[in-house]
Amino acid sequence: MKLGQLGEFGFIDRIARRVGAGSGVRLGIGDDCAATVVPPGELLLTTSDLLIEEVHFRRQWTGLRDLGRKSVAVNVSDIAAMGGTPRHLYLGLGIPRQTALEELDAFMDGLLVEAESYGVTLVGGDTCGSPGPLLISITVEGTIPETELVTRDGARPGDAIFVSGTLGDSALALRKLQTDEAPDPYLAQRHHAPRARTGLGRALARARAASAMIDVSDGLLADLGHVLKASGVGARLERETIPLSPPFRRELEKDGGLWDLALAGGEDYELLFTVPSGKQAVLDQVAEEVELPLTRLGSITSPDDGIVVKDRHGRDCRLPNAGFNHFRGTG
Amino acid sequence: MKLGQLGEFGFIDRIARRVGAGSGVRLGIGDDCAATVVPPGELLLTTSDLLIEEVHFRRQWTGLRDLGRKSVAVNVSDIAAMGGTPRHLYLGLGIPRQTALEELDAFMDGLLVEAESYGVTLVGGDTCGSPGPLLISITVEGTIPETELVTRDGARPGDAIFVSGTLGDSALALRKLQTDEAPDPYLAQRHHAPRARTGLGRALARARAASAMIDVSDGLLADLGHVLKASGVGARLERETIPLSPPFRRELEKDGGLWDLALAGGEDYELLFTVPSGKQAVLDQVAEEVELPLTRLGSITSPDDGIVVKDRHGRDCRLPNAGFNHFRGTG
Repeated sequence: MKLGQLGEFGFIDRIARRVGAGSGVRLGIGDDCAATVVPPGELLLTTSDLLIEEVHFRRQWTGLRDLGRKSVAVNVSDIAAMGGTPRHLYLGLGIPRQTALEELDAFMDGLLVEAESYGVTLVGGDTCGSPGPLLISITVEGTIPETELVTRDGARPGDAIFVSGTLGDSALALRKLQTDEAPDPYLAQRHHAPRARTGLGRALARARAASAMIDVSDGLLADLGHVLKASGVGARLERETIPLSPPFRRELEKDGGLWDLALAGGEDYELLFTVPSGKQAVLDQVAEEVELPLTRLGSITSPDDGIVVKDRHGRDCRLPNAGFNHFRGTG
Repeated sequence: MKLGQLGEFGFIDRIARRVGAGSGVRLGIGDDCAATVVPPGELLLTTSDLLIEEVHFRRQWTGLRDLGRKSVAVNVSDIAAMGGTPRHLYLGLGIPRQTALEELDAFMDGLLVEAESYGVTLVGGDTCGSPGPLLISITVEGTIPETELVTRDGARPGDAIFVSGTLGDSALALRKLQTDEAPDPYLAQRHHAPRARTGLGRALARARAASAMIDVSDGLLADLGHVLKASGVGARLERETIPLSPPFRRELEKDGGLWDLALAGGEDYELLFTVPSGKQAVLDQVAEEVELPLTRLGSITSPDDGIVVKDRHGRDCRLPNAGFNHFRGTG
């Protein structure tokens, strides 16, 4: 069957039939709006992303099933970074004319499987034709008890800086793809199918262990920079403490320049957070609970420091804030 | 200044500085998510739309300021169609490389002015470069007391069918633009800067006057068709009762074929709703309150009827469901 024959409403019906009833959903797909319930005493968290073919993904590198998964994960990751519980998802799709229904089904499979894995229900959206690239717009709503919200602006001098998991894997996979090399399967999976750290985010928020938190999407230095700017503080990091996966470390032994990817690569979707000294015991409990390595990278300092990174020779480098400028990143 | 020099975060800062503190906003632009308050006892309403250049709008026809306004209005209209109060807005922008900052400022002006007119606050979003068309993704959240929600599925045989304002104006303006004619200014304004009927939607919901409601975005017949399908009923309309503006009526006198635009044109953003016979007195009160004409078009019937439209000669026409198929509509 061709998409044009099925039509917009046929395609939406087809999706609606696959979506189960979600908790807290009073009205799902098929009316002017979705109507949902926010638990009493909880704040609503909302994040929205636009993903554009050839800007955020290339179909020659990323299969549509993985793309569906990743579209969900990167938005759920923003909910995790506030300490919240993700709940509802809205999908906007701009579909190029030549797209086969099988491709859309693969995308929707990935999207729905990933959403379900976080307890998230697809409750609305919008589909239309696109004259050019495949366009994906995702909005995710979550909730959090008011007193548990973790923002970017709470880091204070003396707080320890932690990150979950490992850094640089996704960026290294992307570099391989860009040079027509096949990335190590572990690295490829970290790039194509990252997992949002919802369990860790909730645990840190519930335990009030973190003074500030962000997810690492633009790269360690850029995202740390956002926290420092919002909190009005500086930071000192030890480069050698940055957690690296075995495949990344193997490549790093051949090419020391890969440190840049661990420091500024982006798309890690790990959580970067700061912990006041009095909360270390609480953090230890969280760390036992979550089964994810949590690594101390350094400390929050006074704002005058900016970001200082100490390399393995003990030399201090004041590093530029190397975030991705999306307006220059297209070419 | 060029957009590329300003950068993504510079552009976002620039927007954030223009946005006032909204009621119920705990955390606006600048963190991983916005955090907002849903009033106790109210449901969350969410609607999300993707607007693509050359599919949903053409910049040669629509100025960027109007585009900003319309992007807000068409989403707020979905909240109005549930009877809700619109509250928060999320904007995703995919910006072509050659876009001037002045153009973006005009778009943002229109968007912020229109949002403010409904009491809606911009609290989050996402901006990036687009390799092709200008892309606009809008999510609007609103709320409604649980007992007041008006859905599409409550229409029952015997209910009267009403529509607000006039129909066909926007479609007629678009037809003129498509044939390189300048539309009448009133028609042009109805096409470029429609107003969402939030006051009417709230008044109908508060008074429990409407058994079903939808906004007319795909065209009268298509949107009535959505209500009939959801409610499991049919409808009989009298074509001559369809409310038309003076400029539309003048054109209709020259070309009777324009009835098609009033019946199926789309983008009217009026509210179409059904009223049980016992609620006529309540509706009369609402009508006095809202200062917007409300016109009775016909009645809900049994499902076997489908949609029957009686023309001025008293002839019954069973009309096809003439909604816009977005997958065929690009060319």
